Amino acid sequence: MQKNIEQTVLYPIMHPRHIAVFGASNRYAAMGTNLLSSIQALGFNGTLYPVHPKEKTVLGLKAWPAVADLPEIPDLALIVLPTGLVPEILAACGKKGIRQAIIVSGGFKEVGGEGIALEQQICDIANTYGIRFVGPNCIGVVNPPHQYNATYFPYQQGPGFIGMASQSGSFITHMFDYLARSGLGYSAGISVGNEADIDLVDCLEYLGACPHTKVICLYIETIRRGRAFIDMARSIVPHKPIVAYYVGGSEGGKKATLSHTGALSGPDRLYDGVFRQSGVIRAGSIEEMFDFSLCLGLCPLPAGNRALVQTHSGGPGAVAADMCSREGLALNPISPETREKLKAYVPHTGSTGNPVDITYSKNSMDYYMSIPEILIEDTASDAMLAYFLMPGHAIRRVMEGMGITGETAAAQAETFIDEQTRQIADRIKKFAKPYIGFSYYTRNNRFVRNLQDSGVAVLPSPGRAARALAAMVRYTRYRKKIQCAAR
Amino acid sequence: MQKNIEQTVLYPIMHPRHIAVFGASNRYAAMGTNLLSSIQALGFNGTLYPVHPKEKTVLGLKAWPAVADLPEIPDLALIVLPTGLVPEILAACGKKGIRQAIIVSGGFKEVGGEGIALEQQICDIANTYGIRFVGPNCIGVVNPPHQYNATYFPYQQGPGFIGMASQSGSFITHMFDYLARSGLGYSAGISVGNEADIDLVDCLEYLGACPHTKVICLYIETIRRGRAFIDMARSIVPHKPIVAYYVGGSEGGKKATLSHTGALSGPDRLYDGVFRQSGVIRAGSIEEMFDFSLCLGLCPLPAGNRALVQTHSGGPGAVAADMCSREGLALNPISPETREKLKAYVPHTGSTGNPVDITYSKNSMDYYMSIPEILIEDTASDAMLAYFLMPGHAIRRVMEGMGITGETAAAQAETFIDEQTRQIADRIKKFAKPYIGFSYYTRNNRFVRNLQDSGVAVLPSPGRAARALAAMVRYTRYRKKIQCAAR
Repeated sequence: MQKNIEQTVLYPIMHPRHIAVFGASNRYAAMGTNLLSSIQALGFNGTLYPVHPKEKTVLGLKAWPAVADLPEIPDLALIVLPTGLVPEILAACGKKGIRQAIIVSGGFKEVGGEGIALEQQICDIANTYGIRFVGPNCIGVVNPPHQYNATYFPYQQGPGFIGMASQSGSFITHMFDYLARSGLGYSAGISVGNEADIDLVDCLEYLGACPHTKVICLYIETIRRGRAFIDMARSIVPHKPIVAYYVGGSEGGKKATLSHTGALSGPDRLYDGVFRQSGVIRAGSIEEMFDFSLCLGLCPLPAGNRALVQTHSGGPGAVAADMCSREGLALNPISPETREKLKAYVPHTGSTGNPVDITYSKNSMDYYMSIPEILIEDTASDAMLAYFLMPGHAIRRVMEGMGITGETAAAQAETFIDEQTRQIADRIKKFAKPYIGFSYYTRNNRFVRNLQDSGVAVLPSPGRAARALAAMVRYTRYRKKIQCAAR
Repeated sequence: MQKNIEQTVLYPIMHPRHIAVFGASNRYAAMGTNLLSSIQALGFNGTLYPVHPKEKTVLGLKAWPAVADLPEIPDLALIVLPTGLVPEILAACGKKGIRQAIIVSGGFKEVGGEGIALEQQICDIANTYGIRFVGPNCIGVVNPPHQYNATYFPYQQGPGFIGMASQSGSFITHMFDYLARSGLGYSAGISVGNEADIDLVDCLEYLGACPHTKVICLYIETIRRGRAFIDMARSIVPHKPIVAYYVGGSEGGKKATLSHTGALSGPDRLYDGVFRQSGVIRAGSIEEMFDFSLCLGLCPLPAGNRALVQTHSGGPGAVAADMCSREGLALNPISPETREKLKAYVPHTGSTGNPVDITYSKNSMDYYMSIPEILIEDTASDAMLAYFLMPGHAIRRVMEGMGITGETAAAQAETFIDEQTRQIADRIKKFAKPYIGFSYYTRNNRFVRNLQDSGVAVLPSPGRAARALAAMVRYTRYRKKIQCAAR
């Protein structure tokens, strides 16, 4: 039974209207100041109450000497104070009537010894006052659709469709720039820290219900409530994919995660079992997790595991085919009907096997328009991978040949690419099967950037595209299995 | 017995002084025109003779109706003509006295049928006249130190240290931009095509002797002369690493390579054996091949397989440790002496295990200067992986706090980063062990760009850094084994 998002424990933490901020000052290098600055920078719509014993104003806002003095009861306390001060402040918040908190401060369970007792202390205080909280030892939360970014890093792109919960704050914030470089962004990001109260399962519940989240990402060092995790995931997977990157399956990972968040990780096989049972797709790295999410968020699901590779360059096509095979994708030859339709487009140097290698097109647009349109209808495949390349220099050279040079040529080449990519994206987005581009070029290349910004999946290499497609196939299977079991 | 580079068969092809160009015209979209344009663009120092039956000039150069009419004997013929014209032109070149050629044209053995006979025909003609040639079905060669780029793509970065031979032309040219994005470039690039004459073994010989090449890269779909390959590689590996990406080990890869270059590939295990015997490091993708090359070209070799991870963020540190374990790298704790020296730099939230997790430094430069200097001396490790992050926004926020805003702040932040990175790079480059940075940021980030441009190895993720270090360990072992066997 899925909750409405407003009924989830995280809803008020992700949609606060009045925030009491502890630890922000006019010392610009301080963590708390940076968090407040990030909140302001994204244009937060509610009221901010910096609480500071000495300052009269903080970052241009009126500061309050104590939480008790605030003119109303904030719906969230954001605490970025030295470890030892946290219990006292949390209690003061409770007395004021605050019922939600984010505790960024570290120095608790993750350091062992006294830290363990301190963490128990804040849990007891929270219990006393009925406070639900994220952290401690976290880096905050970000909710771009709500123009709300309570993390150390500025969030500069628009809202995206990835909802992420992470046992490492870095994998929320350090990824802002990383995601922007593929045209992606967060619908929600939650750094759970030590999970003394709110944990991954609560995040799953929130992200499952979040209307902006198309794909859920998890960075996991440990799962503290195994049964609840599996049940929650299984309730979500039929309508939303979950991708997880689990670190801790190796000896080195296990030791590192213990000192990071005090997590007790388990062997790979155990986690593989949990993920399979949950219908969660396991990724082998952070990059892979976002590759999978990109494709799952942008493309229709494949009906099966049969891939068709389109290329005009033998090498990248061969690599894509090799990677597809290694990922368990089938590469069937195209049907005789498709071969017949292709005839007009493939020169004698080309090949109509699988990969379909065009080698050379008289009209470069054929490669991106007529040819995909023919291939996507082929009944021998469930998805396509296509090598994308549109080097600007070739267009500029043709223009030079027409006597157009300098800035005029550059501007005309851009207009030309913009018009082409608009047409191509319109076409591809109508396809009922996944059509995944791969290119060694990035958004620095206008062709790639335009396509990504239009919602076409373009991955940075054939191997990454093949693995993402294989992950989509896995998701389709998991989903079907869970749906059948529920009937 | 290693040849002098000038004695290698490829030397005159890579260092031509007078080139006859067939297939360039004033049609700007034509392949041949683009090759000639690329040669001109890199500022080639020799004479170019476009040969064209009708044009009087081509790209501003005097054109010649036939090769027989040229005023001197070129030392290279560059042939970019329709398949059927190649035999006749090659014979004319032979008659003129030309003894080297690059045949870009496709439509030979790789298409089967008549193509096979045509390829035999050009081999016979070459034999008759003593012509040595690269191709057919290739994309040309590039020799940046010689300001010579006979490929379809403009080469825009400076010369680098990677010497590559490839059975796919795309993996030479489409990688210009890719390599530039890590601050890398080619010392030499050779697209071997169908290898009707000059093959990978000849390329190895040339690249082994090339003084600008620090690391050799190979893209392989098949090895045609196994014994010669092994012998040649073994003669090079003691003084220069060779990294190969082999595609064709899977069913899909095998079929694709057959239609690409007519290559008969073999199973993975066979090729693994050949590579091990040759001392060649096998990479799992094109990206990996260049990651390995970057580290091998920039860092000293590790004495063993013991890695030490430095981080200030738990997540990326844990991932690095996990990946090191999976790659067979050992993660020993640091020595008590090192721990003692570190004390002043690690706050109570930090950890001095392995990873060493600083969590927070009062002075951000400590993380990049004093701490690495202490850790690199630790006797329990042979190499270091360090998480690199220097977000510009933090520096700008501090400046805003000091009342410095707008363009002045931006300029001062840049000066600050430039000065920091100069100092950091100077320090790191003196280390006697590999010190490999990893960051989810790219060259778009000034900190990363400056370090890369100063010759510091910065890879795009912890996993890629761990795999590159593991490859360096493999190379060190291979090299030692071959050196011992030779004694």
